[in-house]
Amino acid sequence: MNGHVRALAEAARAAQPAIAALSPQRRQRLIERMAERIERDREQVLAANADDTARGEKAGLSTAMLDRLRLDGVRLAAIAQALRELAAQPDPVGAVTRREVRPNGLVIERQRVPLGLIAMIYESRPNVTADAAALCLKAGNAVLLRGGSEARSSNAAIAACLHAALREEGLPEAAVSLLTDPAREHVLELLQLSDLVDLAIPRGGEGLIRFVAEHARVPVVKHYKGVCHLYVDAAADLDLARDLLVDGKASRPGVCNALETLLVHADVAARFLPAAVGALIRRGVEVRGCERTRALCPQAVAADEADYAAEFLDLILAVRVVDDIDDALAHVGRYGSDHTEVIATADPAAAEAFIRGTRSAAVMVNASSRFNDGGELGLGAEIGISTTRLHAYGPMGAESLTIERFVVRGQGQVRHRQSRTAS
Amino acid sequence: MNGHVRALAEAARAAQPAIAALSPQRRQRLIERMAERIERDREQVLAANADDTARGEKAGLSTAMLDRLRLDGVRLAAIAQALRELAAQPDPVGAVTRREVRPNGLVIERQRVPLGLIAMIYESRPNVTADAAALCLKAGNAVLLRGGSEARSSNAAIAACLHAALREEGLPEAAVSLLTDPAREHVLELLQLSDLVDLAIPRGGEGLIRFVAEHARVPVVKHYKGVCHLYVDAAADLDLARDLLVDGKASRPGVCNALETLLVHADVAARFLPAAVGALIRRGVEVRGCERTRALCPQAVAADEADYAAEFLDLILAVRVVDDIDDALAHVGRYGSDHTEVIATADPAAAEAFIRGTRSAAVMVNASSRFNDGGELGLGAEIGISTTRLHAYGPMGAESLTIERFVVRGQGQVRHRQSRTAS
Repeated sequence: MNGHVRALAEAARAAQPAIAALSPQRRQRLIERMAERIERDREQVLAANADDTARGEKAGLSTAMLDRLRLDGVRLAAIAQALRELAAQPDPVGAVTRREVRPNGLVIERQRVPLGLIAMIYESRPNVTADAAALCLKAGNAVLLRGGSEARSSNAAIAACLHAALREEGLPEAAVSLLTDPAREHVLELLQLSDLVDLAIPRGGEGLIRFVAEHARVPVVKHYKGVCHLYVDAAADLDLARDLLVDGKASRPGVCNALETLLVHADVAARFLPAAVGALIRRGVEVRGCERTRALCPQAVAADEADYAAEFLDLILAVRVVDDIDDALAHVGRYGSDHTEVIATADPAAAEAFIRGTRSAAVMVNASSRFNDGGELGLGAEIGISTTRLHAYGPMGAESLTIERFVVRGQGQVRHRQSRTAS
Repeated sequence: MNGHVRALAEAARAAQPAIAALSPQRRQRLIERMAERIERDREQVLAANADDTARGEKAGLSTAMLDRLRLDGVRLAAIAQALRELAAQPDPVGAVTRREVRPNGLVIERQRVPLGLIAMIYESRPNVTADAAALCLKAGNAVLLRGGSEARSSNAAIAACLHAALREEGLPEAAVSLLTDPAREHVLELLQLSDLVDLAIPRGGEGLIRFVAEHARVPVVKHYKGVCHLYVDAAADLDLARDLLVDGKASRPGVCNALETLLVHADVAARFLPAAVGALIRRGVEVRGCERTRALCPQAVAADEADYAAEFLDLILAVRVVDDIDDALAHVGRYGSDHTEVIATADPAAAEAFIRGTRSAAVMVNASSRFNDGGELGLGAEIGISTTRLHAYGPMGAESLTIERFVVRGQGQVRHRQSRTAS
């Protein structure tokens, strides 16, 4: 048992140079073949998924978890479509991002190279198996996948499709390695392999992220919770602010870029809150407010400290009336999770103060928090949204799975003249 | 005792926004004032350094360590000069690196923001106290410094100068915090503060780096050893190659970008090696070679496996004759440390194959390994040379102490049309 994970990682790492060496055209074709193969082997994948969902029902998984787990023809087609879109994206490997000629004639280039081997540790959605693997390959990396145990048959069936595509292209299957045994000690072993794993990306609930962050000896970029705020400024267009509020809270409450807290400038609270809270309540949202909120909106229940720190991922919103923008920024600084913050304002100075005063991965001026998403921000695809202030911050696309190195071209330059030996 | 380090980190973190909020002009002035203050308080710093060196002599430190520890008027002037040069560098904070307008009218910007709080853990050179602190501040960060215990008086005296400059500028001293008690348990405590420390940078010997990497719960970018290779290709200009060899090995053998291993294509070994090895031996270099090397150069002693993995940091060179470029690349892949690799060749195809076939932070074509240095590569200054393939790879300047986030500007865009509530 022991050593199994290391052997898997060694094989994946040994396979990586073959992926890195492909031309952009061939990496594109590889990912297109993966899409084809998932479509062709549709029945096997759906049968495996039926096993998982049956086992999940028996185990008493929640309706939400079963929904995340379930695949059908439409969802499989969406997975294949996502791979095709990713395949067509610009290839980041080898791109020269900067070029400078030094006074001594040296030409200094920054060149994007793959990170190497990425360990992706995720939970119940089986589409991540295809998405994450393809995104890692697009950037020239190998990937070691460890999905949730509840999705293990689905993940194995999808991985079989990816392996078939690698074989068709004459590439080593080990470039996409799946840790099939879900035992936690395997994850622990994986997280110790600092000589083999260049980056671990945990994606899932708070428990998973904490487990990875606490045990990892390999670098980790966390995709942690989103306690996202909308601040409605004194100078806001209140209709616009209400649209952002409803979109942010009610359009898809279970995702990390949904709003969790509304902050309203005291000067506009009386004009904004009653109608805005009414609109939310009509959409089934439970509103938990401070005293000033409740004075204006009797339908709101009392919010406590924990509500302001919560990522509800549900139709619940915490609301607070603030004295001014500094009060709002102090609240965000105290309770925020560095994910996404929004200001609604028609005052450019207030917008700039809000941008400067927040340290989150994404800050939105007069736009919904729901746009903090790789596709929406133009990255084509994302492996997750980093809330770690290192390497990548915000949505991570293929480019974030590379690193820039230095390529220097000279004509025999040396640093110390006395090193010249030629006669 | 316990909690002391946390309190220090909390104070540093609380001071960071004041540094981030400075205009570029004021950050420049702050660092200039630090240079002035080091010059003005010269006598105190030199007296403190005399204490350290006296203690070091008594403790039996090696000559090399005492040399790294020692300050004099010239070295202090160089520290002040380095700060002035850094002060004049472009300010990275707030820079918009990309801007894109999406089809829905959203304007997506990437904006550089400080990392936050950086923990710098280093050894005996007291100039790092000034250099690292100033570089962190230049990028809008706060810094927590933990230098070597042998330099503690010097570090405290330099930190006092930096604090005086912060006070003169009306800024919180805690933005530069020095861990004065050298006990290892304090470093351990520091490395656990994942809620406060955004990045730890260990810089020093292998023991220090390993200690930090093994115990850190905070993100780490390692500045690890340089087992740097020069590969002399069959198509090399051999005079040029000899210059690169002598500069790389003999100009300053104790630094991480010095050459440690020479690989020579078999076709040119007989023409290249005798004269090249002779030039090295005249400069006091001990040459440890493979059998083919020794057949050509009887002065060379026999190299063993450990010699090829060694970072000698001394006037010692390992040499090996290789069959071809693939053999050279396999050697680098097996023994290299991802730091710096050099090819000497007049064949562009060989150069490209070498670039593609190495994964190191810097790859040089017909240029000395000694150019892998922040100043030489145009970064102005460096906090070290990262050999971690994450966030930064190669020399890290002020820009590498920032992260890009997303700033999105809209006119009320929402993701779901039905979120529109306005009448």
